Amino acid sequence: MSATSHSARGLALGPDGAREVARTLPEEMPVAITVNGSTQAVMMATPADLEEFATGFALTEGIARPDQIERIEVIDLEQGIEARLWVADEIAEALGARRRAMLGPVGCGLCGIDSLEQALRALPPVGEGARFEMAEIAAATDLLRDHQPLHDRTHAVHAAGFLQPGQGVVMAREDVGRHNALDKLIGALLRAGHDPASGAILLTSRVSVEMVQKTVLAGCATLVAVSAPTAHALRLAEGAGLTLAAFARRGAVEIYANPTRIRRRDTDVA
Amino acid sequence: MSATSHSARGLALGPDGAREVARTLPEEMPVAITVNGSTQAVMMATPADLEEFATGFALTEGIARPDQIERIEVIDLEQGIEARLWVADEIAEALGARRRAMLGPVGCGLCGIDSLEQALRALPPVGEGARFEMAEIAAATDLLRDHQPLHDRTHAVHAAGFLQPGQGVVMAREDVGRHNALDKLIGALLRAGHDPASGAILLTSRVSVEMVQKTVLAGCATLVAVSAPTAHALRLAEGAGLTLAAFARRGAVEIYANPTRIRRRDTDVA
Repeated sequence: MSATSHSARGLALGPDGAREVARTLPEEMPVAITVNGSTQAVMMATPADLEEFATGFALTEGIARPDQIERIEVIDLEQGIEARLWVADEIAEALGARRRAMLGPVGCGLCGIDSLEQALRALPPVGEGARFEMAEIAAATDLLRDHQPLHDRTHAVHAAGFLQPGQGVVMAREDVGRHNALDKLIGALLRAGHDPASGAILLTSRVSVEMVQKTVLAGCATLVAVSAPTAHALRLAEGAGLTLAAFARRGAVEIYANPTRIRRRDTDVA
Repeated sequence: MSATSHSARGLALGPDGAREVARTLPEEMPVAITVNGSTQAVMMATPADLEEFATGFALTEGIARPDQIERIEVIDLEQGIEARLWVADEIAEALGARRRAMLGPVGCGLCGIDSLEQALRALPPVGEGARFEMAEIAAATDLLRDHQPLHDRTHAVHAAGFLQPGQGVVMAREDVGRHNALDKLIGALLRAGHDPASGAILLTSRVSVEMVQKTVLAGCATLVAVSAPTAHALRLAEGAGLTLAAFARRGAVEIYANPTRIRRRDTDVA
C-alpha cells in the first residue's frame, strides 16, 4: 500500500525574506472501485482503509450491502489502486443495466436523460436512532481531534467519526476527500459490527447534500458537523427525520433539524 | 434563477443554555451540463454564473473550447438546472464515442477498463506565463477576501480569483464546490477576453490533483492557494511547469514548485 503522506520542501517568502520550510503533504491516489470486473467509479482518495472504503461506498451508492459482498481485493497497480468487489452475478447484472449518476461538490457522472431526477434520489426516513446529552454532542468534534493522526501530520485532510452515547468517539477515519472519509467510516463500522443507528456521525467538514444522503442510507439518525450545512442539505435532513447539528466546535453546537434526539437537560422530555 | 442562499433558524446549545439563532446558509442545486441534448455530467453547485461555469467546465474537462460553443442556454427545471451547450455535430459525436472518467475528492465517473489511466491524464507544459512580485503573491488571498460576497453571508463557500501583475484581483467567482468556483472563474475570464496566461489563479481551498489539471488546461502558469497541496498535485505541478504557491495567508506564502515566476527582490534575476 502507498504512503498516506510525503515530505516536501518549500520556499517560504514573507516580509523577513526567504527560508526553506519542510511540510508533510497528504497523498492522494486514483482508486477505482470495480464490481465483478467492471469499473463503477474512480475517486482520488487517501490510500488507506480501502476495503472499508469500498464497503461503505458500495452501501451508500446503492451498489451492494455488506452481506452481499463475497470478497474484496485491493490491488496496487502502476496507475493507481483497484478495490475489487465480488458479488453474486444477479447483483452485478442489475448494476450494469442501471445508468448511474453520482454526485458531489465536484460530482459528476455519466448520466442518462433522467440525470437530474437521479441527482436528488428519495431518501427513506431514518429510524428512531440513539439519544444524546447536549454536552456530549457539543464536545464531540473536539474529541474527534484526538483521532486524526494524518491531519496532525498534514493539517489538510478531513475526518469522519462515530460517537456513541456515553462512550465518546469509538471510531474515526480520515481522507483527503470528505465523502471518502465518511464512506470509510461507514464501511469500518459495518465491518466491525457496529450498528450506525446506535450513535451519531461526526464530520470535520460542511454538510452538503451527499453527506446527508450517505448518513441516512447508512442508517444513522444524527449528523454533527464542524461547519455549515447547505440549505438543500437541511431540507433533505428535515425530510428524512435526520437530526442535523452544525457549527459544532469549542463546546457549542447549533441544531437545525429534528432536535428531539438531543436532551438539553435531565428534565427534558425528548 | 434560484437564490444562492437562504435564511435558516437553529437552536444554539451551549454551557449557558439554549437560544434561537439565525444563519444564512448557501444553496446548492443539481446542475446538468448537456451537449447537443446529451447529458455530460451532473454537479451540485451554487446556482449562479452558470453560463460561465459551463464554459469553464467544457474547457477544463475537454468537452469543447469556448470558440467551439455556438450557444449556451441555462434552463430552470423542477428537479434542478440544465446548462445546455450547443456545438458542431462532429464535436458532439466525438464526445459520444469517448468513455469519460471524471475526478475529484468525491469524483466519480462511469469508466471503462482504462479508467485509472484516464484519471491521471497527461498535462501539457504551461507556457511562460506572467511574473509577479513576491509581495503581491503573498497579499493575494487576503485581497481575494474582498471579492467573496456569498462567503460574507454564509461563511461556507469557496472562491477562485484571478490576480494580474500590478492590477490586484481583477475577477473572482464563488461556489459551494471548490472545483466549480474554479471552472466559473475560468469561464468568466475567457468570456471576458482575459488570457489566463496573463495572471495567477487564487484559491481559498487546498490544491488537489484536479485543481492543478484545470489550471494548466486553462493555460494559467501560476496557482496560489490558501491551504496545502497534496503530494500528487505537487508532482503534477512540477511536471507541467506550473508555479505552485500554498499556505498563502496573512502576508506569507510558501512556493513548492517552479518559483522562478515570483521575484523575491528587485535585484533577483528571474
